[in-house]
Amino acid sequence: MTRVDVLVVGAGIIGLSSAFHVKRLCPSCRVLLVEKHPGPGHGDTGRSAAAFRAFFTSRTNMALAASSIAFYREVQEREGFDLGMRFTGYLFLLTEEQHQALAPVLEELRRRGLGYRVYSPEELEELLGLRTRPGGEEAELMQLPGIDVGVLAENAGIIRPERLVEYYSRRIGEMGVEALYNTRVEKILVEPEQPLGVPGEPLPWQKARVVGAATSRGEIRADVTIVAGGAETPFLLDPVGVDIHAKPKKRQVFVIRADRPELRRLLHAEGFNSLGLAPFILLPKGVYIRPAPEDNAFWVGASDHLGRPFSWEPDPQPEEHFYEYGIYPVLHNYLPAFENARPSSAWAGFYDISIDGQPVVLSEPGLVAAAGTSGSGIMKADAVGRIAASLALGKKRAALYGGEEVDASILGTRSRRVEEERLVI
Amino acid sequence: MTRVDVLVVGAGIIGLSSAFHVKRLCPSCRVLLVEKHPGPGHGDTGRSAAAFRAFFTSRTNMALAASSIAFYREVQEREGFDLGMRFTGYLFLLTEEQHQALAPVLEELRRRGLGYRVYSPEELEELLGLRTRPGGEEAELMQLPGIDVGVLAENAGIIRPERLVEYYSRRIGEMGVEALYNTRVEKILVEPEQPLGVPGEPLPWQKARVVGAATSRGEIRADVTIVAGGAETPFLLDPVGVDIHAKPKKRQVFVIRADRPELRRLLHAEGFNSLGLAPFILLPKGVYIRPAPEDNAFWVGASDHLGRPFSWEPDPQPEEHFYEYGIYPVLHNYLPAFENARPSSAWAGFYDISIDGQPVVLSEPGLVAAAGTSGSGIMKADAVGRIAASLALGKKRAALYGGEEVDASILGTRSRRVEEERLVI
Repeated sequence: MTRVDVLVVGAGIIGLSSAFHVKRLCPSCRVLLVEKHPGPGHGDTGRSAAAFRAFFTSRTNMALAASSIAFYREVQEREGFDLGMRFTGYLFLLTEEQHQALAPVLEELRRRGLGYRVYSPEELEELLGLRTRPGGEEAELMQLPGIDVGVLAENAGIIRPERLVEYYSRRIGEMGVEALYNTRVEKILVEPEQPLGVPGEPLPWQKARVVGAATSRGEIRADVTIVAGGAETPFLLDPVGVDIHAKPKKRQVFVIRADRPELRRLLHAEGFNSLGLAPFILLPKGVYIRPAPEDNAFWVGASDHLGRPFSWEPDPQPEEHFYEYGIYPVLHNYLPAFENARPSSAWAGFYDISIDGQPVVLSEPGLVAAAGTSGSGIMKADAVGRIAASLALGKKRAALYGGEEVDASILGTRSRRVEEERLVI
Repeated sequence: MTRVDVLVVGAGIIGLSSAFHVKRLCPSCRVLLVEKHPGPGHGDTGRSAAAFRAFFTSRTNMALAASSIAFYREVQEREGFDLGMRFTGYLFLLTEEQHQALAPVLEELRRRGLGYRVYSPEELEELLGLRTRPGGEEAELMQLPGIDVGVLAENAGIIRPERLVEYYSRRIGEMGVEALYNTRVEKILVEPEQPLGVPGEPLPWQKARVVGAATSRGEIRADVTIVAGGAETPFLLDPVGVDIHAKPKKRQVFVIRADRPELRRLLHAEGFNSLGLAPFILLPKGVYIRPAPEDNAFWVGASDHLGRPFSWEPDPQPEEHFYEYGIYPVLHNYLPAFENARPSSAWAGFYDISIDGQPVVLSEPGLVAAAGTSGSGIMKADAVGRIAASLALGKKRAALYGGEEVDASILGTRSRRVEEERLVI
């Protein structure tokens, strides 16, 4: 049996950040990280679309993302540790109706000093080769709306998750956090504070707490266990009666090589940032395009709502028809540069979708759970880790990077105090 | 293939009430109720503790419970349909600390005209034979707190679920709602509004809606499907990507016959109501006692939090040790009348626990889901059914019994606007 002060379950980006901040706040704590994969970031962290934006309507979402992005920027620019961050911007392509609906939100964001730029249809046509009025039989059948305006969020862009994973895992190694890979958590352990040795403990009248985990390498006991299992978190917490209020949903990302002049021109579009790169583009109907300049490619995907299941499987595979029928028809109708483009590769992972699209960080005696990042975990990981670490160390408040303090219970389920997010992809 | 206007899945109390109110609001609608059991109310509705209270701190909870109770009272007193309602009251037994913490809440309830009475330890000792200061080795080991005050909520009591089920099912029969029992829903059907016949439909860019259900008796198509599957709701909705944000947790109820003078005296305790019956009693540590005068018995149970799983099984069984170690030690230490009392029978069912202990009624295109009643479904069923029916019929507002109108989206997940409930059992 191993005994530690803080056990962190999961070496995805949330677990890594949590372990880092626990050790930073409590250098004398013995912190142990366990992960079923052979290394850090091998799960859904590495299967994301790897983009970031400090552009949300929920103040909480904004604080989480903006402070995390500022921290990553500091790491890259001051510490000189390349995270592959590129401030390409996020371009929302909107109908006039959507723009009208968002107008008060954008006004509020402007007041808060969140820079954005507005593009006319003519500018979008010129800079991206965008068909703002897609026509033809297919476009009509699909009821593809016309695009009347582009809104570019400037404090936004792309990042390389494997570099961020490398940063945190290197730092926690230096700080003395122990890590056990290839180690599967079989069960979170709950015990009464004063065990009696009778059946069914903890009994309803007993004060119970989480005391660690049973793993494939034996029992690990801890004062506090931080569960950061991403989309698999419910499988660990349901058996102990804790509801993280998040569910797994498959995400698929397809890689399109910029192997012809039209796509190369699009990838290196001018007019959006000082890098001469296309921004992260949000087309109507939930289709998104991420520039991947290091691969001379684009990553494309689509969010969906009603109809596709909440479910989990150990080795999710991308589905050819999801690209062919789900993404391509939208893609090529708006951006003819993608005409006949087919993916050269693809992967699938899981979103971990919470009740409101914002992360969940809850605490119970001996337990902190951090999950539900809903597809924006990387861009908020530093802040989520700070909040999880603060709860694990019994603090009422958490200091985000840059100094803003938040109530550490803000992302809990019963204690939740987050605002509605209206800039949803 | 059957075609109806409104399909209701589940003939528990929520499904019955929903079907009733749909048909009441839309007499010309063809409404079909399907249920896997051989009759109505055969699931968790019939396995509850069957009590009610119009005594909550959340205004929403209050409106749901108070209006439903008023409706049931009307049914029993004006329509002359006996629901077995008895206004025994709900007696919360509190420590001074708990009482202090609840003081502002009680003050607010008083201002809202919610009648309650306060009992001193001496009165409780005299009226119930309560040991307000349980002593001895076991009580000390268990850290059983002393009871300093009793708060009796007056608009509260017990009800017979099978009578309420009978009322609704008789009424919907008279009104022309069709019911199919022994009919299992295999799948909720989601289709694009304009199908193309390609793989993977509905595709992410397509407008999709729920169009009915595949059942063991074939496909049933409906303009709107109301899913009221209680604790099983996630099994129906997860496959179509709708999260009801509620999970099943086992509940157990044990029957103790009042077969000796001390227990008979307790059952017929004076001083709490005009019926000369013991109130529904909430002891510390989550143990509750429901008078069951028609059986000359008490029903006892205990709520629990950390440690017992969220899980579901088709035929849950009560666990002997749950009574013996989980309930009895609390019971007999406070109420010596239960000394050596053992259950004559018992049953188990499932709570359907939502994020905040209040019901969930959400809508998606073609779908309404009503569940998450968290152990207080019967006492709120009429209001929940009215809200579900209003959403199913495309109304923005729902009129509760007595005339209060609420926004029909108030119990949704994304649109949720409920206040924290602080009178939790």
